[in-house]
Parts: sequence; C-alpha cells; structure tokens
Amino acid sequence: MSEVTRVVLDAMGGDHSPGEMVLGAVNAVKEKRELFVYIVGPEDKIKGELAKLEYPKEQIEIVHAPDEITCHDTPVNAIRSKKESSMVIGLKMLKEGKADGFVSPGNSGAVLVGGQVIVGKMKGIERAPLAPILPTMNGVTLLIDCGANVDAKPSNLVQFAKMGSIYMEYVAGIPNPRVGIVNIGAEEEKGNTLVKETFPLLKECKDINFIGSIEARDFPNGAADVVVTEAFVGNVMLKLTEGLASGLMQKIKEGMTATPISTLGAALVKTQLKKTLKTFDATEYGGAPLLGLNGLVVKIHGNATNKEVKNALFQVETFKKQDINGKIKEYLLS
Amino acid sequence: MSEVTRVVLDAMGGDHSPGEMVLGAVNAVKEKRELFVYIVGPEDKIKGELAKLEYPKEQIEIVHAPDEITCHDTPVNAIRSKKESSMVIGLKMLKEGKADGFVSPGNSGAVLVGGQVIVGKMKGIERAPLAPILPTMNGVTLLIDCGANVDAKPSNLVQFAKMGSIYMEYVAGIPNPRVGIVNIGAEEEKGNTLVKETFPLLKECKDINFIGSIEARDFPNGAADVVVTEAFVGNVMLKLTEGLASGLMQKIKEGMTATPISTLGAALVKTQLKKTLKTFDATEYGGAPLLGLNGLVVKIHGNATNKEVKNALFQVETFKKQDINGKIKEYLLS
Repeated sequence: MSEVTRVVLDAMGGDHSPGEMVLGAVNAVKEKRELFVYIVGPEDKIKGELAKLEYPKEQIEIVHAPDEITCHDTPVNAIRSKKESSMVIGLKMLKEGKADGFVSPGNSGAVLVGGQVIVGKMKGIERAPLAPILPTMNGVTLLIDCGANVDAKPSNLVQFAKMGSIYMEYVAGIPNPRVGIVNIGAEEEKGNTLVKETFPLLKECKDINFIGSIEARDFPNGAADVVVTEAFVGNVMLKLTEGLASGLMQKIKEGMTATPISTLGAALVKTQLKKTLKTFDATEYGGAPLLGLNGLVVKIHGNATNKEVKNALFQVETFKKQDINGKIKEYLLS
Repeated sequence: MSEVTRVVLDAMGGDHSPGEMVLGAVNAVKEKRELFVYIVGPEDKIKGELAKLEYPKEQIEIVHAPDEITCHDTPVNAIRSKKESSMVIGLKMLKEGKADGFVSPGNSGAVLVGGQVIVGKMKGIERAPLAPILPTMNGVTLLIDCGANVDAKPSNLVQFAKMGSIYMEYVAGIPNPRVGIVNIGAEEEKGNTLVKETFPLLKECKDINFIGSIEARDFPNGAADVVVTEAFVGNVMLKLTEGLASGLMQKIKEGMTATPISTLGAALVKTQLKKTLKTFDATEYGGAPLLGLNGLVVKIHGNATNKEVKNALFQVETFKKQDINGKIKEYLLS
C-alpha cells in the first residue's frame, strides 16, 4: 500500500476562486487514490461547488476559513492581521505537519511572506527562492529565484543552483539537469559583482552540472534546465516574458483579423497554431515551488484553471514521493 | 544655408558589411544635401560598392582602414591593438572633431569601450549609458542603460534619466517623456537597494516627468517613454526581448505551416501579419545611442540593412541640430 499525500489547497485569492480550485481538487483525487486534499475557504462556498460534482468523499475535507487575502492586500500586513484567511490557515496546517504541501493561486507576495514566516525555512537554508517553471522552445526551464528577497549573496545563489537541480531532476524528471547563471555575456570574466563572485563557486560544485553563463537571449531556447539568478533579475525576466508573449499574441491577432481575406486565413491556421502554441505552456508541471521550506509551498497562477490546480496537487505528491526535502538536507550536510 | 552634419560610418563588422553600409550612406546623402559621410573601411572594398551606385560625390569620402574588429575580438584588446581597424580610425576622427557622430554595426563591446576610451565622456558625466530604442505595442521606449558598465550607483541612474529624457524629447520627438524605473512591484517601498535609493532622487528631479516604478510586464505595453535601469538588468531585458520575439515568431511559423490547410491559411494572413508586425520595429529611429560622450556614438544592429544605416545617419543629424550635448551640458550645470 502506498502512502497518502496530503495537500492543503487554498481555494481563495484566484481569478476563478473557488470554482476552478474545487474542480481541480476533485479531478485530482478522482485520478489518484493516494491523494488527500484539504480545501480551505468559506465553508458554504466550497460546499456549494462540491455539491455540483461527484467524487470520492473520503479524499476531500473542507477546512473553514471565513476571510480572504486579496491582490490588494500588502503581503506582510495581510499575513500578520488576516489570521482567519484561507492562506494563513492553510499555511499553518502545513507548518503543523497536517499536510505535505500547500497550493495557492493567491497574492504572490503574501505566499512568499507566509511561506517564510509561517512555514519557515529548513535549517541551513539561507533563503527560500521562488522558482517558476517556464516554457521554452523545446521544453521547460526552472528560473530560480523570482521571489521578493532581492540583493542575494553568492552563497544564496549556490544553494539555489543545488535546490533547483534536485527539483528538476526528481520532480520534472530531467536527468543531470544543466545549470546556467544569467549573465550579460558568455565569457567567465563578464558580469556584475554578484555573478563574478558566484561563477567560480558554481564551477567548484561537483554535484551539479554547471554549464556556465547563459545570456537572456538564449533563455527562451532552453539553453539550460536550471537558470540561476538573483531575484530582482529573475522577477524582471519572468514578468517580461509574460508581458511580451501576451503583447505579441495580441499584435498577431490584430494582424490576422485586419481584412476579410486575412480573417479567412486566420480561420484556416487557427487549429494548428493553437496546437503549436500549446506546447509553449508549462502548466502541466504545476505551479512555481517555493523551495527550501519545511514543506512544499506552490504558487499557481492567479488565473489558474482546474488543470493547473490538479497538476500542482500532483506536483506535491511527486515532491513527497521523491523526498526532495530529504535530498536537500543530504546536500546541506555534505 | 543650413550647416553640414558630418558622420563617420564604420562600414565593417556587420553581417552585411560593407555592401548595406555603403548603400545606406548613399541613400542618406541622396535624401539630405546637408549630410556628409566618411565611410571607413578597406578602400578597395568600399570603392567596389560605391562603383555600383550613383550618388553626389561631394557628400561621401572614403577613409581607408585595412583592419577590422570582428565579433570574435575581445573589446578592450581590440580597441588597444587594432589601431588600423575601421572602428578605431573612425572613433578617433570623432574625437578629433572631424565629425559630429559615429555609426557602427560592429562588436558591441568594442563600440562601448572605444566610445569611452577614445571619444571620452563629457565633463561631469559619470557613466556613458547605451540606450537602445525598443518597439512597444503602441510606439517606442528608450531602455537606458543596456551597456557593459554594471553595478551602477543611484547618481548614475539619475543622470541616465535626465539624458534619456532629453534624447526622447528632442531626437525621438516625444514631448515631456514619461520616465519610469524598472522595479519588481509598483509600490515605492519595493525594489532592491539601488532602486530604493534611486527612487526618491528621481522623485525630486523637477526637470523630468517621473512616473514611478514600472514592472517588466508593462514594459512591452509602452508604460514609459524612458525606462531607467542598471546595465545588467537592461542588458537582460534587451536580450530577452530579442530572444523571445524571434522564438515566438518561429513557433508561429511552425504552427502555420504544419498542415496543407494551415499553409493555405498562412498564405492568406501573410500580408496583413507582416504589415502589423512591421509596426513592431524601431529601426526608423536609427540605432542605440551611447549618450554622454564628446560626440554621438551610435550602435546599429549587427545585421543592419541600408534602411537602419540611413536612419542612424539621420539620427546623428537630428542630434546635432537639436544640440543634445548642449542641452546635457546645461543640465549638468544646473
């Protein structure tokens, strides 16, 4: 008999909360018998959503949380003052060991603060990085760190490289993942002070497959499996990728529907184009893990639908089964 | 009679050197009588290209340079040792006051080093930023600094904001340009140490239209006309934009030509799509100026064709006519 994985799902704070959150949880438990989900949110709302669906009742439990942290809340204040919010209640459950992971579509800043303040870092971990998995032209890349703790030190980046490497190998299933550091040139002597100081430390690491500097130009081509960078730069890369992709798609739509003839053409290319662009999607890998905490915290997109929710729940299961935190601990002791 | 603008054109170091460089120069002088271009490069090659074209002979002069700096050269070494290269000879002409500006498609690092070492910074300018003009969904944005001098100080960024503002107002023709600083959140208290220290200084500047922080997500939407950032981040933004745009276009092409039906559709949307995407092009603004030097140095793309060359030559003319360096001097004294 395999062991049960318990996940806390924050059903609130997303664009499609709680409907898509609940649907994602239901689909997940239907697919995996050894998964148990605590859905945290206002009891009546969650009940209302669950009533619409059929599912194995013994695998889902509602945890009542009357309050909600919204995108308008200031992270630190919200975590401190909104004790009855689904996020704070959920994170506390993780902290108390009631679950193996926590998944939320809510306020990114609050998830980051809450993860560190409530769940807490593993002993020996200097910083807990947020590491979204981004699509590339031929696969996916882990961009680590995109969080809120900026101005990192070289030793922080070395830990990111190692944790990211373990994650991509055992959760995403990429053997011996290539680790690169974001730089403004391919040569070793290039870079800012942080990169210049970090580079030799990464080169010395025997337990990662360090391939050197990668330029941002090559990032979308999948130049590395784990892309290490300080959080300010990572955050800029993440948001620029999102902004550019959506802006370009909008331009293309405009061009395609500008005339009757092009609109006809658009109808003919639509199916194939959607198919190809679907490969440019990383939601099958779940959400962005916040690594180095006493339990897995996963931030999914604010506009996440049930598919991403389901995959994030599976992500927690893989994380547990592969004993990622155990592997991180081993590395810290080595 | 209007005054003549003299521009040094480095004909070498580009993907289409010297053919497209020479063609761009010829097209420029044909269009503007008050423009004079020194074309620097191997005399026989330049002569060969010029022989194919008709043009007003009194507006073009060949300056012989037997050597060339390539993309494989290390910038500092190349500038020091390749004294007979078109880049070094051209930059020296600018330094000696023989011209108002210098345009090159060559090795970016060498242009940056050569600009600072040979041409030199204006008195009072702490750093000379490289400031490419990038296309946005509804116009263009100056991204300042994308150069090689990383780890900037707050006072550097304040100068960038001011110089960028002058440039966009008087060269690109955008009245009272909006100046934003790249940040990882819209709030004033967000950011790394550099941004937090720079923010209040920019807020105090009475002679710029500072609109606060902008997130990288909003950069492609044209959230500001002048986007100020430290060179490492700017370089990453520039290169990520290039890499993502070309990667996405490739994906779209793949999808469009995947089946016979989609290929037919692609033929029908092609014209309009090209038209729309052409608006996503900033080459009509010339190249990226390296600001704050004793004369204008312009870096054009390595793959620049004659249109970009011509516009970069016109860019030098506007720069001179608008007395941009005079305006920067005034600001330094204020």
